[in-house]
Amino acid sequence: MTDINTRPASRATIEDVAAAAGVSVATVSRALRGLPNVAAATRSRIEDTASRLDYRPDPAASRLAAGRSRTIAVAVPVVNTWYSAQVVAGVEAVCSEAGYDMILMSVGIDASHRRRLDAKAALDRRVDGLVLVDLAITDDEIDSLIGSKLAVASIGPRLGRMSTFGIDNVRVGEVATRHLLDLGHTRIGLIGEDTVPVFEFEVPGQRLTGHTRALEQAGIEPDPELIAFGEFAIDGGYEAFDRLMAMDDPPTAVFALADEMAFGALQRARELGIDVPDDVSVIGVDDHPVAAVVGLTTIHQDVSEQGAHAARAVLSALDGTDTELVHETSPVRLIERATTGPRR
Amino acid sequence: MTDINTRPASRATIEDVAAAAGVSVATVSRALRGLPNVAAATRSRIEDTASRLDYRPDPAASRLAAGRSRTIAVAVPVVNTWYSAQVVAGVEAVCSEAGYDMILMSVGIDASHRRRLDAKAALDRRVDGLVLVDLAITDDEIDSLIGSKLAVASIGPRLGRMSTFGIDNVRVGEVATRHLLDLGHTRIGLIGEDTVPVFEFEVPGQRLTGHTRALEQAGIEPDPELIAFGEFAIDGGYEAFDRLMAMDDPPTAVFALADEMAFGALQRARELGIDVPDDVSVIGVDDHPVAAVVGLTTIHQDVSEQGAHAARAVLSALDGTDTELVHETSPVRLIERATTGPRR
Repeated sequence: MTDINTRPASRATIEDVAAAAGVSVATVSRALRGLPNVAAATRSRIEDTASRLDYRPDPAASRLAAGRSRTIAVAVPVVNTWYSAQVVAGVEAVCSEAGYDMILMSVGIDASHRRRLDAKAALDRRVDGLVLVDLAITDDEIDSLIGSKLAVASIGPRLGRMSTFGIDNVRVGEVATRHLLDLGHTRIGLIGEDTVPVFEFEVPGQRLTGHTRALEQAGIEPDPELIAFGEFAIDGGYEAFDRLMAMDDPPTAVFALADEMAFGALQRARELGIDVPDDVSVIGVDDHPVAAVVGLTTIHQDVSEQGAHAARAVLSALDGTDTELVHETSPVRLIERATTGPRR
Repeated sequence: MTDINTRPASRATIEDVAAAAGVSVATVSRALRGLPNVAAATRSRIEDTASRLDYRPDPAASRLAAGRSRTIAVAVPVVNTWYSAQVVAGVEAVCSEAGYDMILMSVGIDASHRRRLDAKAALDRRVDGLVLVDLAITDDEIDSLIGSKLAVASIGPRLGRMSTFGIDNVRVGEVATRHLLDLGHTRIGLIGEDTVPVFEFEVPGQRLTGHTRALEQAGIEPDPELIAFGEFAIDGGYEAFDRLMAMDDPPTAVFALADEMAFGALQRARELGIDVPDDVSVIGVDDHPVAAVVGLTTIHQDVSEQGAHAARAVLSALDGTDTELVHETSPVRLIERATTGPRR
């Protein structure tokens, strides 16, 4: 039988470096990736050895051998929102600490982009795990992901068969609306986003449910005229607020389903000469860092922590330390600032 | 000689799917990745065929064979800033269109994290290309990257041997300071960040150079007491502004080296009861979307476009269509809003 040696004779392996430096292969790997927990002198010796042997790691090959890519994908609807950036930062911090790379995937908002989630994440072997961010996926998609043996966690709505991390968005709507009711407001406008059909972003609908529930509990009939939809961003809030203020009998308070929408509302209020909160109160959701700058009353949530916890769940599932399903609901709290006040 | 067949007999290849569906291998690849430019009927036939043959792509193997990972890394100093999110969105859009994945790497701000850039990007074979964001890399690091045959582009300072995309930050400092001088201000404070030693973030220093130059051209001696340093974020701007306002003879105008620092200044001004712009004018840099909300006068730059152009440069180098070095300087412009006014 022929001895098949596919490796060029000149090529040093990580085992060669470890033997020459007198350390374990794992230590070489950590040292050359710049990861912590390697003594400086050891790191220096390994680097010198690797350099002398002209060693270059070839992780694609080692990944194939080990069946692991040491890569986690994060699928977000839109890359450049504050919310996405916070989630990604939380996931990245945990991945980085564990020596994992993170692939950021934008799943977009139309069906053709949506398809990529399935094709790229479930079928590819390029990632070991996947963190889904605010994607209301179908039962078929969940089946496909679970069948693919990827470690998966989701940030957003609770899903029975997948670990989920998020906040109680119905409660967010209740807390925000109750704050306005407590200040004496009865005509309360809502600016938010309609549920996008393809994308099925459930958060706005849940916050709207909480809003409606709080109104009904206060004996106020919800008025569909007081709901103004717009894009879940500054511009959307700007336009929706403008429509509410153009009513014959405009609301005296507005609940914006996200701080960025509230920022747009504040911008339009300033342009229209409408005083906040004397003429109209405004409350948001998120506690975006700019909320403190503009004095926005809001509902606080810790988004990067949700990302970090989801990443830890994926890593725990991968290393077998914890394979239980987790459904974690992070606390939210009202932050009273300067944009809400008593009804005049 | 023995015929070595390492592939299990049951495993279908992409060639099998292409033959059975009567299309090219490239079309199968595009269809199963959910990429556009595949007719719906064709896509459906390919999906049915792949499903029937139980085909699962194994891109790690095909990447090894082709010597391409179809992955580009983006190395950013900090993941969760507005600036980083915009760059990443621009890179991601171009990568996604071209069927590339994007790995987001946070290079951090200390030496041990910095090392990862070298180890992971230059030595690994996991990525074909690399977009560096605002990293002032050393000549040795440039040599290493060029020697690694990675396609590389940089967003930030112009580097001779690498395509670079950015703005003229000295000019940014001149334009901002000249605007304040034109309004009659002579005691102009600056809030920014000192150059971080390990990280060598050059942008603040360049904007400071432009600021100093504009003062000197106006016959004003730059006063080091009027420079207040803080973290390049809202909190840093808040604290630096606070220190300037605590002076016996505080400045009548403040140039913040980034909009986020300016937001912190505006927040502290509101708390201190200092009227902007009647008591003090404030100008920032970026044209962050919140700048319009708070009426911040600023210097506009298009960050996501810089990311997209850098990604296109990397992809062009990879497919051989354009291997010329490019040094692109994007235009900047003054956006006058409500936070700057004449000196009283």
